[in-house]
Amino acid sequence: MSHQDRSITRYPGAEVVHDQVASESPLEIRVEGTSVAITMRTPGDDLDLAAGFLLTEGVIDGADDLVALAHIGDPAARDPNTVDCRLAGGVEAHRAELERATRELYATSSCGICGKASIDRLQLRYPPLTRTLVVDPTVLLTLADQVRARQQGHGATGGLHAAALFSPTGELTVLREDVGRHNAVDKVLGHRLRTDRVPVDDAILFTTSRAGFEIIQKARVAGVSAVAAMGAPTTLAVDLACDSGMALYGFVGPTRFNQYSG
Amino acid sequence: MSHQDRSITRYPGAEVVHDQVASESPLEIRVEGTSVAITMRTPGDDLDLAAGFLLTEGVIDGADDLVALAHIGDPAARDPNTVDCRLAGGVEAHRAELERATRELYATSSCGICGKASIDRLQLRYPPLTRTLVVDPTVLLTLADQVRARQQGHGATGGLHAAALFSPTGELTVLREDVGRHNAVDKVLGHRLRTDRVPVDDAILFTTSRAGFEIIQKARVAGVSAVAAMGAPTTLAVDLACDSGMALYGFVGPTRFNQYSG
Repeated sequence: MSHQDRSITRYPGAEVVHDQVASESPLEIRVEGTSVAITMRTPGDDLDLAAGFLLTEGVIDGADDLVALAHIGDPAARDPNTVDCRLAGGVEAHRAELERATRELYATSSCGICGKASIDRLQLRYPPLTRTLVVDPTVLLTLADQVRARQQGHGATGGLHAAALFSPTGELTVLREDVGRHNAVDKVLGHRLRTDRVPVDDAILFTTSRAGFEIIQKARVAGVSAVAAMGAPTTLAVDLACDSGMALYGFVGPTRFNQYSG
Repeated sequence: MSHQDRSITRYPGAEVVHDQVASESPLEIRVEGTSVAITMRTPGDDLDLAAGFLLTEGVIDGADDLVALAHIGDPAARDPNTVDCRLAGGVEAHRAELERATRELYATSSCGICGKASIDRLQLRYPPLTRTLVVDPTVLLTLADQVRARQQGHGATGGLHAAALFSPTGELTVLREDVGRHNAVDKVLGHRLRTDRVPVDDAILFTTSRAGFEIIQKARVAGVSAVAAMGAPTTLAVDLACDSGMALYGFVGPTRFNQYSG
């Protein structure tokens, strides 16, 4: 299922409505029982995803290398979030390629196969957010224009994300650009750490990207109490924000935004 | 430097012009000499990036944990792509957190610290592309509308990327959606592997995302000879496409596109 129904507050108007949010949940890709990768994906076409991952990471060269590919478990109780595959020649014949591919392994140690479990573990590992920063709607509507006006690299290339920190009254304190949206977030939070203090419980973290789980996870660890994203959030990001008491705003532009939590 | 000058062909008009492309190159983050992560980033604010990465990955809790942070090497010959940091209490005090953070380690084994080296290594490891698929401009201008019309999940949520394969004459053969742009690419290439053949030397790979290095790397490994991206490419992606003889198109919409190689 590519999306799920969520209750949100839509601005302007402050209307509580049902909206569709893009689904995100972890898929574990195994080769003959051994975990090779956990990727945050939208459920559906999991076998294509696993086959393509093994191809584009250099583990297999073609369909002949793939003897079997299926969700694990007996047919009645298959785990929809784990795919196992059997390779021609066995694991040994692909040992070097498998080791190379597992460099991409996402978060096996800290992020369980169940999104809910990994949220619970995050909440256990980090102190509770000290406050939820509910931002004045009129302030939120000013953020996107302020960021766009200062995005020099994006203005030149059309290809850079930005992240920024704002005071609760809408003053921009730091803005950073990067090809990687998570890097832009790390840059502003790193600047804050080096020049001020953490947790970041007195500022709004703005990103020009969508709000996926990884972005909200980074914000949660840094103690950010309000996140505003220019793009859409995912289901897992909304869940983490709600469970953390973090305010999460999406589709934040000059004339509208949606509130997903807080 | 957040962007670099590149020569491109702009359509409509087929005019060769200079354009600014977003910079992408790897940054290695070390803790007391040991590599913790290599991230593809836009150069600049590297110390903020390293500090933020260590914070949001849970290695450090605040500025007090960070004793020193600098590009490595003597001042005259500093490596602009490697940052080393010293932690309060030494490495041992942060062993568990460091191990957790290195789960994110990007491509140490296959992707050198120099983008050019990693491109050379890719070219050595995989057979040369069998052909460059130069696509008729009138065909390219039809692709974005075809994809948007079939993107059911994105239509509902505004939050899903899509990837698709097209024949050289513009017939869509497969389309997949995902919150992760690399997953959408893996899904269409996996579908191709399971139902047809690789290398994908007779089709255009379309993505609704930007064309970063990872996307072009995946395409290169699967033998894709033409990539069309709705968004901007990065410098390293353009370099890899040029060196591979892969046609690369960016900002592909219904009325315009840029050709970066091929």
